[in-house]
Amino acid sequence: MNTGPAAPEPTPEEEAALERLYSDFDSENLVPLWTEIGDLMPPHPRSDADPHLWRWKTLLPLAERAGDLVPVGRGGERRAIALANPGLAGRPYVSPTLWAAIQYLGPREVAPEHRHSQNAFRFVVEGEGVWTVVDGDPVAMRRGDFLLTPGWHFHGHHNTTDKPMAWIDGLDIPFVHATDSAFFEFGPDQVSDHSTPETSRSERLWAHPGLRPVSDLRARHNSPIAAYRWEYTDRALTEQLALEDEGHPGVVEPGHAAVRYTNPTTGGDVMPTIRAEFHRLRPGTATATRREVGSSVYQVFEGSGVVRLGGKEFTVDRGDLFVVPSWVPMSLGAESRLDLFRFSDTPVFESLHQDRVSVEKESE
Amino acid sequence: MNTGPAAPEPTPEEEAALERLYSDFDSENLVPLWTEIGDLMPPHPRSDADPHLWRWKTLLPLAERAGDLVPVGRGGERRAIALANPGLAGRPYVSPTLWAAIQYLGPREVAPEHRHSQNAFRFVVEGEGVWTVVDGDPVAMRRGDFLLTPGWHFHGHHNTTDKPMAWIDGLDIPFVHATDSAFFEFGPDQVSDHSTPETSRSERLWAHPGLRPVSDLRARHNSPIAAYRWEYTDRALTEQLALEDEGHPGVVEPGHAAVRYTNPTTGGDVMPTIRAEFHRLRPGTATATRREVGSSVYQVFEGSGVVRLGGKEFTVDRGDLFVVPSWVPMSLGAESRLDLFRFSDTPVFESLHQDRVSVEKESE
Amino acid sequence: MNTGPAAPEPTPEEEAALERLYSDFDSENLVPLWTEIGDLMPPHPRSDADPHLWRWKTLLPLAERAGDLVPVGRGGERRAIALANPGLAGRPYVSPTLWAAIQYLGPREVAPEHRHSQNAFRFVVEGEGVWTVVDGDPVAMRRGDFLLTPGWHFHGHHNTTDKPMAWIDGLDIPFVHATDSAFFEFGPDQVSDHSTPETSRSERLWAHPGLRPVSDLRARHNSPIAAYRWEYTDRALTEQLALEDEGHPGVVEPGHAAVRYTNPTTGGDVMPTIRAEFHRLRPGTATATRREVGSSVYQVFEGSGVVRLGGKEFTVDRGDLFVVPSWVPMSLGAESRLDLFRFSDTPVFESLHQDRVSVEKESE
Amino acid sequence: MNTGPAAPEPTPEEEAALERLYSDFDSENLVPLWTEIGDLMPPHPRSDADPHLWRWKTLLPLAERAGDLVPVGRGGERRAIALANPGLAGRPYVSPTLWAAIQYLGPREVAPEHRHSQNAFRFVVEGEGVWTVVDGDPVAMRRGDFLLTPGWHFHGHHNTTDKPMAWIDGLDIPFVHATDSAFFEFGPDQVSDHSTPETSRSERLWAHPGLRPVSDLRARHNSPIAAYRWEYTDRALTEQLALEDEGHPGVVEPGHAAVRYTNPTTGGDVMPTIRAEFHRLRPGTATATRREVGSSVYQVFEGSGVVRLGGKEFTVDRGDLFVVPSWVPMSLGAESRLDLFRFSDTPVFESLHQDRVSVEKESE
Repeated sequence: MNTGPAAPEPTPEEEAALERLYSDFDSENLVPLWTEIGDLMPPHPRSDADPHLWRWKTLLPLAERAGDLVPVGRGGERRAIALANPGLAGRPYVSPTLWAAIQYLGPREVAPEHRHSQNAFRFVVEGEGVWTVVDGDPVAMRRGDFLLTPGWHFHGHHNTTDKPMAWIDGLDIPFVHATDSAFFEFGPDQVSDHSTPETSRSERLWAHPGLRPVSDLRARHNSPIAAYRWEYTDRALTEQLALEDEGHPGVVEPGHAAVRYTNPTTGGDVMPTIRAEFHRLRPGTATATRREVGSSVYQVFEGSGVVRLGGKEFTVDRGDLFVVPSWVPMSLGAESRLDLFRFSDTPVFESLHQDRVSVEKESE
Repeated sequence: MNTGPAAPEPTPEEEAALERLYSDFDSENLVPLWTEIGDLMPPHPRSDADPHLWRWKTLLPLAERAGDLVPVGRGGERRAIALANPGLAGRPYVSPTLWAAIQYLGPREVAPEHRHSQNAFRFVVEGEGVWTVVDGDPVAMRRGDFLLTPGWHFHGHHNTTDKPMAWIDGLDIPFVHATDSAFFEFGPDQVSDHSTPETSRSERLWAHPGLRPVSDLRARHNSPIAAYRWEYTDRALTEQLALEDEGHPGVVEPGHAAVRYTNPTTGGDVMPTIRAEFHRLRPGTATATRREVGSSVYQVFEGSGVVRLGGKEFTVDRGDLFVVPSWVPMSLGAESRLDLFRFSDTPVFESLHQDRVSVEKESE
Repeated sequence: MNTGPAAPEPTPEEEAALERLYSDFDSENLVPLWTEIGDLMPPHPRSDADPHLWRWKTLLPLAERAGDLVPVGRGGERRAIALANPGLAGRPYVSPTLWAAIQYLGPREVAPEHRHSQNAFRFVVEGEGVWTVVDGDPVAMRRGDFLLTPGWHFHGHHNTTDKPMAWIDGLDIPFVHATDSAFFEFGPDQVSDHSTPETSRSERLWAHPGLRPVSDLRARHNSPIAAYRWEYTDRALTEQLALEDEGHPGVVEPGHAAVRYTNPTTGGDVMPTIRAEFHRLRPGTATATRREVGSSVYQVFEGSGVVRLGGKEFTVDRGDLFVVPSWVPMSLGAESRLDLFRFSDTPVFESLHQDRVSVEKESE
Repeated sequence: MNTGPAAPEPTPEEEAALERLYSDFDSENLVPLWTEIGDLMPPHPRSDADPHLWRWKTLLPLAERAGDLVPVGRGGERRAIALANPGLAGRPYVSPTLWAAIQYLGPREVAPEHRHSQNAFRFVVEGEGVWTVVDGDPVAMRRGDFLLTPGWHFHGHHNTTDKPMAWIDGLDIPFVHATDSAFFEFGPDQVSDHSTPETSRSERLWAHPGLRPVSDLRARHNSPIAAYRWEYTDRALTEQLALEDEGHPGVVEPGHAAVRYTNPTTGGDVMPTIRAEFHRLRPGTATATRREVGSSVYQVFEGSGVVRLGGKEFTVDRGDLFVVPSWVPMSLGAESRLDLFRFSDTPVFESLHQDRVSVEKESE
């Protein structure tokens, strides 16, 4: 906190006058800049959020216990347990802009339909048997799939098996809350279509490389692809590394392949506030150190390694989640082949021209 | 706050288990959605911010007292006193995204140069004699002028007269703070150009209707016009009302003229996070009631009238400032001709496709 | 031709004066509007180009004879035989803006590398064994594939088999010629990479649904996908018709499925001047009658049917090509399942806001 | 013309077979590429159009004679005399894409209303007294003004004085004709509003620097400003040269000021196919030599100088018009202060990513 500009030592009268002034500011709902500027306008982003890791082996048993004790249904809406960044005063926010939760649905359970202005996705690190129904289109959920429920689309989930299933939800709840732009509406208590196709209608229309249906040529803010299947993600990453082996470009940096999930109607991000990517490191790869405006959350999909976040270092394993707050230096090291899902709030900053990135290769 | 989905009354054992579960959530930095969803995801925006009015006749004397007691200079940077929304827990924020302050510069004083990622503007309700120097270009400040210092442009102010001057600053400080995207850098302690031209170089290049210099054809995120002069604003509003008198379209609604300040390189808003407009109501005009996602601040430039904000009603007079939080119904009534400057965070929502507007004509 | 505005019968003196005036216009390189306006500015597009059909069973033998008699190599560059619209005075233009040709490459032949500002594609109605090498990336050509060589990309072709191969070339040569924007440069006489992979490097990076490599996030004017494979086109069309069978939307009109080939970095057309689509009609389907600004060329890929073009009617069969000049009413009728490849100049008109479409359902 | 790829001398039998082949091509409406490629695909644009100059002192008397002999009215529509490029075979085209004409309206005459898809403008080198009525909005025409009638806007002209008036029309007629995209519709025989205001309604709404009416926030393909007044153009150019005198940037090159007329809703060109600019050279200034894809027409507004166009050199004086075909090297030398209006087809090439520019400073 800044104590104001340098000045000669004030007299007792001046000090009293200043005290009266500050008290009058207070009663008139005013606050001076000069005492606040250091916190308000730091030299670079200094997030209240901490770099932090949540372990899958801790999360999953807690979700199972919630499954036993807490019913899912109208009102509570979802059995979702949010990662609450320890720097953010107990609020259910993984970062100041992002929400990340583990959601758990027991055998034959249904999470009722609703819609909201918040953009949402699911990522599946293990399991299957749940269908998400998005505006009437049932979408199967399977390991490695990335699934969208963009803002103001009705959606519910139902488990059609005798086994529970857990997955990760990502949303822009904190951003929408901070900016007072939230709308919410209840839908039916049951999902609106109980069929269980392997492939959603949205994929049948839209998930063909470089092709779009002539029946729908509108521009869209959100990707019309409801599910990005693991099969394609894995193949794209495999090809990038194979091209590197053959001496051709295609990877982000040596040993580091990555794809971005995109909206096929624009080539841009899947939703206006959320970017999603999948990264693959060869065993032994150490990435450059990177700082970015905005926060990211990673989930390890497969393999193990080390992540360095500012001064902290975590070993990570399958299912583990960690958050990278704004402008915190981040690098990864892969012990085995390391597959990571990532999402971030970067589109917000790119849209508003507040984005910045700084990259340093550590060992050079 | 939601107490979770309806369920049979739990047994004492179940209650104890649930308590243990919640305690374990807490120690693992987890928070369940089902107890929070009502606050996090309301049916429509319910801002913590209050509709509120600050009177110019209160603000100006307090700014003058600050002028007597608090020096301006490096460290505190600006003698700016922020409007602190009474709903926002003492933070110097007029709304969750916007900053509004009265800034005061005494005779011959200098506010040193700096730059920051936050976008800023000034609006002058009265007075003159200060030049804002923006990236080396001195910009005169006069009653009715709207002046830009977009993100990452160096700027300082100096008063070249023997009289003080006060004006309004608007910035996106709360938004940038909430999203961890702030950068700041000090510049020289003195302004970098002491000349005092009537017209800035930016205006000489850019403030010609429908014309742009062929020497600079880049697209720009920010308007290159450093000052939007009152003379043009007044003339545009006068013409809109004259056209209405002659039976032609051009006004927003009967008796209500308005211009938006724009970036001549895009036709869009002056800066990526801030919209600015000037409104003029004929005497006796009552506007429709309007709700918008996002918050606005108005300053009465001339005249008097009434503003209705949700259940509240304020009479307003020259220099008074009021804030309209997100989704609060707002309407204006003009006693005399009523001239109002307005700024808002709407570009954020339009860029991210979270914008919504609802308009009702009250008396129909 | 218009003889000028109505006026009293001129005197002989006036006629002589008028004659002198027109003669003086001529010697000063001037032409009056009033004698030309009817041709220059018709009430709607009246193309000099005719609706016309070229039969594959005629084209292919002529191409084979050219293969026997005309070597391919530097100077002539390609053994391509252009469809010359009978209305266009012998110029090798299928329409005023588009070029369509059959290209033929004998066993082991090579078409040398060059590049040009004209945008080009190939479509393969039958055969295989040729690789097109685009900026060093060898791209296999097979039945049903749509292949790009966008403007200013080096490209050559070589036949690696003992059998000849023929395919269709489409370019914007007439448009580029008419607008004086052509550039051309010779490359190596041999293709720069003789390998014969099943899948090009461009596809390995880019042809994954909804995914893009993080290593290359530039916006591009042209699609980075060098080949759109038949397997995906066929699957997308099959799904559209299956969705129609199941009662869901997805087709253009009853019984009519269609996909547009797109640039995955924008969601728009594959190249700035050329649109490409693939259409499938169920047996018995009759399309609405459609007029569009701009011209299209269709090639029947499979099946047979009827096309009505203004007053003309043609039966069409596998491999046949027909051109639809601007604003000529066009409808299709399918005898069997009818698969058609289509390309057009529509992006030119959409970019310049000169596009218009009119659709009428005939039989209702 | 290319005679095909190098090959061993053909035998008489081969020659006969080739002749038969070419004859069969002809009867089947086919043309081989290999005999045409040199003309069709040149190494760089080689326009049929010639660099050419038309002198105002020649044009104006011819227009006056037409005024005496040819009535203006429905059918012929306009007394416009087109500059016909001597390289373009007598067609009324100043370049392959652009139309330029002198239009002449006698005392009290009326040119009836019509609309067409072609984009049009007027530029006034001398005179006044005519109002152009654009979609019901009367627009005064005065020396130095640049006036728009974008595609599909009804427009007519009437002379309210006892003196004739002549001006320059520019349109995209050749481009629209070549691409078969012309639509045309007659309006009333008289102009729809006979009032004669100094300032059009469009200007009263739109010609305020950096401001737009909140009543109309649509994006538009065409500028809503019907007239760009000389007063503003002159002031903008004066300021650029004054800034240069003061040591600041702002001019295109030493001694060369220029403004582009823009669409205030986009910051881009006034119409999708036509760019318009105004250039001012200080006495003695020699510009760099410039080649551009696309063609330009210049009219000298004031002063005298020299223009070099490829190998040709013309002295130019007030009112003279000259055309710069695509890729022809062009430079200007100013004897006195030289003011030039310019229009071109550049937006076509920029929209379709076919634009190229090459600049060389000659004397260095």
